[in-house]
Amino acid sequence: MVYLTRREHFNGAHRLANPSWSEEKNVEVFGKCANKNWHGHNFDVFVTVKGTPNPDTGFIINAHDLAKIMKREIVERLDHKNFNMDVPEFQNVLPSTENVVQQIWKWVVPHIKGCQLHCIKLVETENIYVEYFGE
Amino acid sequence: MVYLTRREHFNGAHRLANPSWSEEKNVEVFGKCANKNWHGHNFDVFVTVKGTPNPDTGFIINAHDLAKIMKREIVERLDHKNFNMDVPEFQNVLPSTENVVQQIWKWVVPHIKGCQLHCIKLVETENIYVEYFGE
Amino acid sequence: MVYLTRREHFNGAHRLANPSWSEEKNVEVFGKCANKNWHGHNFDVFVTVKGTPNPDTGFIINAHDLAKIMKREIVERLDHKNFNMDVPEFQNVLPSTENVVQQIWKWVVPHIKGCQLHCIKLVETENIYVEYFGE
Amino acid sequence: MVYLTRREHFNGAHRLANPSWSEEKNVEVFGKCANKNWHGHNFDVFVTVKGTPNPDTGFIINAHDLAKIMKREIVERLDHKNFNMDVPEFQNVLPSTENVVQQIWKWVVPHIKGCQLHCIKLVETENIYVEYFGE
Amino acid sequence: MVYLTRREHFNGAHRLANPSWSEEKNVEVFGKCANKNWHGHNFDVFVTVKGTPNPDTGFIINAHDLAKIMKREIVERLDHKNFNMDVPEFQNVLPSTENVVQQIWKWVVPHIKGCQLHCIKLVETENIYVEYFGE
Amino acid sequence: MVYLTRREHFNGAHRLANPSWSEEKNVEVFGKCANKNWHGHNFDVFVTVKGTPNPDTGFIINAHDLAKIMKREIVERLDHKNFNMDVPEFQNVLPSTENVVQQIWKWVVPHIKGCQLHCIKLVETENIYVEYFGE
Repeated sequence: MVYLTRREHFNGAHRLANPSWSEEKNVEVFGKCANKNWHGHNFDVFVTVKGTPNPDTGFIINAHDLAKIMKREIVERLDHKNFNMDVPEFQNVLPSTENVVQQIWKWVVPHIKGCQLHCIKLVETENIYVEYFGE
Repeated sequence: MVYLTRREHFNGAHRLANPSWSEEKNVEVFGKCANKNWHGHNFDVFVTVKGTPNPDTGFIINAHDLAKIMKREIVERLDHKNFNMDVPEFQNVLPSTENVVQQIWKWVVPHIKGCQLHCIKLVETENIYVEYFGE
Repeated sequence: MVYLTRREHFNGAHRLANPSWSEEKNVEVFGKCANKNWHGHNFDVFVTVKGTPNPDTGFIINAHDLAKIMKREIVERLDHKNFNMDVPEFQNVLPSTENVVQQIWKWVVPHIKGCQLHCIKLVETENIYVEYFGE
Repeated sequence: MVYLTRREHFNGAHRLANPSWSEEKNVEVFGKCANKNWHGHNFDVFVTVKGTPNPDTGFIINAHDLAKIMKREIVERLDHKNFNMDVPEFQNVLPSTENVVQQIWKWVVPHIKGCQLHCIKLVETENIYVEYFGE
Repeated sequence: MVYLTRREHFNGAHRLANPSWSEEKNVEVFGKCANKNWHGHNFDVFVTVKGTPNPDTGFIINAHDLAKIMKREIVERLDHKNFNMDVPEFQNVLPSTENVVQQIWKWVVPHIKGCQLHCIKLVETENIYVEYFGE
Repeated sequence: MVYLTRREHFNGAHRLANPSWSEEKNVEVFGKCANKNWHGHNFDVFVTVKGTPNPDTGFIINAHDLAKIMKREIVERLDHKNFNMDVPEFQNVLPSTENVVQQIWKWVVPHIKGCQLHCIKLVETENIYVEYFGE
């Protein structure tokens, strides 16, 4: 079992606020992240798959195929987007990094063939990242 | 003459679009950066000052004083802000990184005493940065 | 189960030497790290917690609360300190990175509420780091 | 149980091509990596060992001893080498990163004493890395 | 005058050896870099241009146009290539990083319009880089 | 004229305090850096030289020769040392980074032959660095 990880990059805007709470409570809980006019980040996303190398290629997955999946399923959906406004899956779900990383798993997992999806890691700043292993 | 550089960090949202142009022309020129619903970045800002070390301290500037200036003049104005909507200086000026770096110079330069401001460097992503030397 | 990791930074000095050994044996085993006059490092510490996101906030822990815990329990104790001389826990314990990472776990674990402490990672240089998972 | 990781660095050239396939099929599967005249990378290799710190030293392994093992078993074999032509183990095995990481495990594991080899991580570019845990 | 820098990435193989010298002299001067079977690197290339921001766009150059120039003039010529064998300009010139950086300047400079090429920086490893300012 | 930069690394301890001042004044000016029991850093030092590539080698300086100079003149003097106590040049000079970078220039400049020393850059943390150009 070998693990292979590939990185992609996207930029986005979001706002953290619970619509059923008052503005005061949102600022108290989410601080500057509740700014009504949005803020944004450069996100790095790492997808890790695991499997046995194919004897003909030495690959557990062709990295070019994994790149295509990541660009189509993650980057096209999130890059230069406002997560709250432009992404259907976050219409009724807070786009916290914890929730975004789980959604990325759901987008990617049906497309991984011949090996298994192991982990999605989402880096929000150099000081914060989240990981999700599918359960 | 010794040069000292200090880094700070902020996150913000912006949109690149010329209000006197059509939506089509904005998308043609600014691409995904013209998204009406904003996008954002993690910005690193580097301020470089130059001078002669004080014989009593070995410092050209006390780094704690420089940190205070950078937090007050740059981070408080831009962190978790929408540059187009929340920052008065960008009401009528496009918040391109080229324009933001020049504005940061204007905010910082009056507060550097006992040495000279040399450069502002603004890093937008790991692939793009701008620098401004005051003229 | 989502994993969230936050980074903090501190600088410190230490010396590696077993007080029951001769100077020669200490230099033989610890090399330059046995320098009697100390040496130091910039340390990065990563704290990872795991849990289920709260549906109201999308958070497994409020990152600002985790930041406060890390500043109070780790940074205030170790930053700009001499681990051997200034930190009571290392009066009789060698402040190797292996021992420091276990001590950091002990300081942090009582303060993590509503989710679980998963890992402490301590990076000493770009070439060496240690991790501790609590057992 | 504490985990300690040490990094080393090497540069090498390789080519990905299955000798039983046509040139066309190799280009179709391996893309630019099939270039007949080779290409190369800066590789970072991370070796992780796990164990209980020795009470006399605070170490699970003396990092200088681990460095010697990594230089002799990994760097001397691969640095500034052509993996396909200069490394006997890749005469009949494709030097994909998946296969290289498993070979590094075989070279290193007999030399780890007093603690256990846990993981070999091999970073090919800032966007791709592989990990192997020995099974 | 604002300076804008954009990064691209490529991998390549090369060999340092003076064809008019003996094998011994080449090894003496170039060390492991003289390996007959090649070695390689991940290269980062940074192109810096300088100019006055256009009032309509806030840009000194459209970063997408600069990206296109860099991909066509640098990446397509050097990525996954053997500099000595695959690149006509290095048939009779040693592909040292010093010589490669000057050649990159020659490829890029005719395509920079509306602002000036200021610097090419070529990073060979995390420990070595070269810069060329056109004269 | 091509510029070549090489990096080396060292760890050290220091204390910032003016011996002619009271303890209170030292803490007021130098903050935590005045800790009597020292603190330390991982330092990266970058040496930049400039010159014309030699047509026989493509080099402005043989990087292995520059590495030897940097190890002998910088690393052996400062690595795992207490700058205040172990380094003669800082017996009567405050080892601020501004003063250390100028001292490194003095150590290195007599040994650069066939090209010119251009800059010493000393990185103290990821947030602070100093540069000295010899005058």
